[in-house]
Amino acid sequence: MKPDVYAARLERARAAMGPLGVDGLLLSLGADLPWVCGYTAMPLERLTMLVVPGGAAPAVLVVPELEAPRVAPMPEVFSLRPWAETEDPVAIVADLVGAALGPHPNLAVSDRAWATFVLRLQRELPGAHWRVASEVTAPLRAVKDDAELDALAQASAAADRVAGALLGGEIELAGRTERQVSAEISRRLLAEGNERVNFAIVASGPHSASPHHEATDRVIGAGEPVVCDFGGTLDGYCSDITRTVFTGQPEPELAHIYEIVAEAQSEGVKAAQIGASCHEVDDAARAVISKAGYGDYFIHRTGHGIGLEEHEDPYMVAGNGAPLVAGNVFSVEPGIYIAGKFGVRIEDIVAATSNGPRPLNVAGHALTVLAA
Amino acid sequence: MKPDVYAARLERARAAMGPLGVDGLLLSLGADLPWVCGYTAMPLERLTMLVVPGGAAPAVLVVPELEAPRVAPMPEVFSLRPWAETEDPVAIVADLVGAALGPHPNLAVSDRAWATFVLRLQRELPGAHWRVASEVTAPLRAVKDDAELDALAQASAAADRVAGALLGGEIELAGRTERQVSAEISRRLLAEGNERVNFAIVASGPHSASPHHEATDRVIGAGEPVVCDFGGTLDGYCSDITRTVFTGQPEPELAHIYEIVAEAQSEGVKAAQIGASCHEVDDAARAVISKAGYGDYFIHRTGHGIGLEEHEDPYMVAGNGAPLVAGNVFSVEPGIYIAGKFGVRIEDIVAATSNGPRPLNVAGHALTVLAA
Repeated sequence: MKPDVYAARLERARAAMGPLGVDGLLLSLGADLPWVCGYTAMPLERLTMLVVPGGAAPAVLVVPELEAPRVAPMPEVFSLRPWAETEDPVAIVADLVGAALGPHPNLAVSDRAWATFVLRLQRELPGAHWRVASEVTAPLRAVKDDAELDALAQASAAADRVAGALLGGEIELAGRTERQVSAEISRRLLAEGNERVNFAIVASGPHSASPHHEATDRVIGAGEPVVCDFGGTLDGYCSDITRTVFTGQPEPELAHIYEIVAEAQSEGVKAAQIGASCHEVDDAARAVISKAGYGDYFIHRTGHGIGLEEHEDPYMVAGNGAPLVAGNVFSVEPGIYIAGKFGVRIEDIVAATSNGPRPLNVAGHALTVLAA
Repeated sequence: MKPDVYAARLERARAAMGPLGVDGLLLSLGADLPWVCGYTAMPLERLTMLVVPGGAAPAVLVVPELEAPRVAPMPEVFSLRPWAETEDPVAIVADLVGAALGPHPNLAVSDRAWATFVLRLQRELPGAHWRVASEVTAPLRAVKDDAELDALAQASAAADRVAGALLGGEIELAGRTERQVSAEISRRLLAEGNERVNFAIVASGPHSASPHHEATDRVIGAGEPVVCDFGGTLDGYCSDITRTVFTGQPEPELAHIYEIVAEAQSEGVKAAQIGASCHEVDDAARAVISKAGYGDYFIHRTGHGIGLEEHEDPYMVAGNGAPLVAGNVFSVEPGIYIAGKFGVRIEDIVAATSNGPRPLNVAGHALTVLAA
């Protein structure tokens, strides 16, 4: 991205601060920082924090001296304040805040900033009031611009190709461990150009009933469901796709459940019209599953937004009345999980557009039985 | 690890709370949680938190319902409180704290817990006082037991084998990009059994002057220094090693700097005797570099502790007067960085033992010129 993209984003964030009564943003770990300045803080014990006063006062990136050479200079957006190993970066941030905003500022700090820094900042700035930065940034980040939509489509297309290899039987399942299959999916995601694999869930047999299962040394058998849920980061933007495949013809109840989940997923996508509320997407998927008698076995929300972070606003969940707008991008991923027996989940990423919901994943949903 | 190991650790943490005036521990992201109960929280927007009241009251792991199947039951250590998607996990934690500790508890929360949860907990528990959990856990975690020392030695041995391939010329450098070499180092770390690669810095030519450089598409040339600093996680424990190699005979100043850094590293290790303070290790390495006239170019501390986390207590840094004790494990990694020209760093992991400092890395330190 060019500096003017970041300068414009910082301007929009500043414009949003006033009405919310936020005097300053303190951005550290998480995606708000790269969203406004292109730099991602290292998740380590040395503090990196962008201090953004409201109005026109300059933003300052407080960064460990040994990491300063990583930062691309961007004078339109921020200046740099490297700190040496024997300096206290929290005191530096507090001084910058005090000088720009006085003793009683309303501050919004990155949602993922570490407790150790938040608690020390609270001690250094006893008159400050605190909230999270997502109150300012989440509504902005949730609406993707054209370049972001393109990046998300590219990331999803890369994940689709790995899903295609899975559905096409190129990735051997039966006889291998979940961990081996997870490693192969990871390798394929990297070969597709992802700079990072965020997760590669492979949950076979009874493990498929655990939605966030971590791949184990369990050997995948014949006649089993295998839930594969994986995603990476490509040029900064995330993918996330789930397909459930079968190493042999599933028993009738399991095949029935698969069809229910596929219909729920399809209905969730259809409901994702501009102006519909997020909970209506959840409702639409959940209604299919509840009507079929499996409502108690769909134990998570229907979806989450996606972008620079794998999970971000907007969330497709009961109680979220926010209306969808063009540029929202999110997952639709219903599932049914029968503890001790089996589970099924199907997930695509979907963009809300003025022409209706546009799935960014195109890998098929038909029940797929692979040779055991 | 067996449940009795975790039960004993939890007991030691509880014993440490009393003298510090800590009434309750709230453990979430970071290594304190797996250290006391073997479970690692997912770094996502759904809260996982172990509530540990002082005394004998039971510990409770508050965990998203969809992740509860991931948790191995350990009734000696904790009970489980899964929360459903429409529940508020922060309110659940606050209720547990209020019931066990009353309205004015002194609470210690994981250093890496996210701001979003800390701020919401502070609102739900307005009478609480807050500090970080490392005040309780860091002194305990910094002293590794025999099983941990063995795990760290295994992790270092795996990293050593990759370093050996580098020094032996098996990993091609000149003509490839930093990113390609970084990817090969990562593949080799995974092939050595690491479950995860934490970083694989490859900094060539002028990039070698950036200590935390991120590998780029720069093609490595002939006659250049290449700083390779990498580590992974093997059976839960971290490795971290740096070697600087040369794609052709270095110019005299660079060769001289290499010898200075090698001597500084060796002197740092020698100073790591039980009873010596952490800053004396830093002093010993820094003295060599300062005496040679390069003190201003050694812009970071000499080392950091290592264990379940890649950086943890104890830190070998000016001002840290804590004495080394048997079971401390840490890096000794001096460097010299001349901006725009070149840099050199050499790093080994070292354990403090009653027989003196024991390097866990054995890959050689001799200046190594590889065929260009």
